[in-house]
Amino acid sequence: MKIEELGERGLIERIVKEFHSEKRLVPAGAGEDDCAVIDIERAKAGYNYLIVTTDTLQESTHFPAGISPFQMGWSIVAVNLSDIAAMGAYPFAFTIALGLPLQTETSFVDELVAGIEKCASSYHTVVVGGDLSRSKELILTGTCIGFADNPVRRSGAKVGDLICVTGSLGNAALAVQVLKGELDVPESIGAVAKRALFQPVPKVNEGILIANSGVATAMIDISDGLALSIAELAKRSKVGAELYEENVPVLSEELRHKRGLELSPHERRELAFYYGGDYELLFTIDQRALTNEDLMNRLKREVQMSIIGTVVPPEEGVYFKKGEVKEMMELKGYQHF
Amino acid sequence: MKIEELGERGLIERIVKEFHSEKRLVPAGAGEDDCAVIDIERAKAGYNYLIVTTDTLQESTHFPAGISPFQMGWSIVAVNLSDIAAMGAYPFAFTIALGLPLQTETSFVDELVAGIEKCASSYHTVVVGGDLSRSKELILTGTCIGFADNPVRRSGAKVGDLICVTGSLGNAALAVQVLKGELDVPESIGAVAKRALFQPVPKVNEGILIANSGVATAMIDISDGLALSIAELAKRSKVGAELYEENVPVLSEELRHKRGLELSPHERRELAFYYGGDYELLFTIDQRALTNEDLMNRLKREVQMSIIGTVVPPEEGVYFKKGEVKEMMELKGYQHF
Repeated sequence: MKIEELGERGLIERIVKEFHSEKRLVPAGAGEDDCAVIDIERAKAGYNYLIVTTDTLQESTHFPAGISPFQMGWSIVAVNLSDIAAMGAYPFAFTIALGLPLQTETSFVDELVAGIEKCASSYHTVVVGGDLSRSKELILTGTCIGFADNPVRRSGAKVGDLICVTGSLGNAALAVQVLKGELDVPESIGAVAKRALFQPVPKVNEGILIANSGVATAMIDISDGLALSIAELAKRSKVGAELYEENVPVLSEELRHKRGLELSPHERRELAFYYGGDYELLFTIDQRALTNEDLMNRLKREVQMSIIGTVVPPEEGVYFKKGEVKEMMELKGYQHF
Repeated sequence: MKIEELGERGLIERIVKEFHSEKRLVPAGAGEDDCAVIDIERAKAGYNYLIVTTDTLQESTHFPAGISPFQMGWSIVAVNLSDIAAMGAYPFAFTIALGLPLQTETSFVDELVAGIEKCASSYHTVVVGGDLSRSKELILTGTCIGFADNPVRRSGAKVGDLICVTGSLGNAALAVQVLKGELDVPESIGAVAKRALFQPVPKVNEGILIANSGVATAMIDISDGLALSIAELAKRSKVGAELYEENVPVLSEELRHKRGLELSPHERRELAFYYGGDYELLFTIDQRALTNEDLMNRLKREVQMSIIGTVVPPEEGVYFKKGEVKEMMELKGYQHF
């Protein structure tokens, strides 16, 4: 059945029954009123700051070939949660504006909505409302609201801080290169990489742990590639960055141990720095953290922290350092225009 | 110049400098970080509820021919504020997701952004963030956050309550009919009507006054026509409605006094009940309010209240009453699918 047969109100009813909220916290949830109503004292639970972000994904520009409707729904929540994670905030509520072509199948919408609900509920986030409109192509805009006590800004890095990342980079990028035919890898590797690209994992818990560590000075997510994120953090903090490229964890352990994946140094750099889609966190910590071995071990274990560089004065710019050789980082990555 | 020449980051910089926020209330505003950061104690100023709504407008389905970019920007804020108004809430912050075709002129974006900022600031609302993406057609998704102590729900109407509207209805609808060539009116009338359609006025202050009156039992905005709004309010409140059609103020005073505008009873009903675009408020008040003459006069004067019906038991349905004659109201209006 196509959604046009169902009509707007029928479609709204079908969608909103998939979203659940607790009346005590959310007296008016999805589809119930002109707006969602959130009991602010209960929801904020003592936090000082309200955190808001919005992000759009659409079929023609954002979704790779082969992604499922469930994964599209998952992704629109994940990309918003990734921004919440980058502040070290706790996500709370999510709204979803769906633009759907008239010829969309209701089963497609069902799967899309299941993906939205699955990702949101995986991170204790309530879908509280949305909007439905007819559009030429599938377009999803999410807005996420969260709370934080000490939001970690992009602007707080100081000279001497350590530059760190969570997890590994280049997994989604590998899938992009495979899909584009730029890289030839065995089927099993392509499948793992595609999972990273199609269903990104927002580092919500990692962001909260980093913020609560007390040593983080700045943070940003790496949606458009490491190079652009480093450049943005450096610009906002008015600093430069010295990068130790060999410390950057390129590809997940699972991928690194697969046979048949040989990457040149150039390919490794391309994957980690100049492609996007990984949604790891880039952050800086006070170098005095190095003396707190317990904390360092905890960060390595719980957020898979790797130290990839040092903050330097702004006039030095952003560069790779290998032995005595310096090479300036290029400023490229995923741009929408 | 086209936006593709400016690039994503150049375009973002150009846009965000138009949005201003006070650091004390909004430590991180538009374009400054992964998320907006709002000082929650200062912003909520003691209110109990956080109110959230989202709404999309796009070129092919929502924007009438002849609307300017400024008016498009104004409209995406206005339709969201109208939902905030329908709860009787105070709007506080707004995020805007812009989907723009690559060939969009930067001057078009400048005007669009000016309209967004103008409407938001007219209602003490701060644009705190947004998203930019490339799309096949212009698509705008706004999300508005506000605060309220006693949000007026759709579900609170009880038998015996008076059914009321703010202002006048059918103004935007008249413009739609003129644009469609369904109605032939003098140029001067078309111009006034088009203003109502192109630059709708959200009834934010009226909604707050109604909520604060202490007598409102339910409220909804009338974006898709009076008939659909009455039906929705009745459904949510599990009641019926008896309507006095002649009490419904059709067209603004300015339009009614123009020469050359003769409407049949059928045309009046179509304009007021079965078209959308006016963004007035439909609300119910406790009938005991009638004994408070001061309050009634204040509501008539300050929110241009007209009493257009009475809430009846659900089994009676929604009907027009004229003398002893009952005529069931049709369930039609603007639907997106």
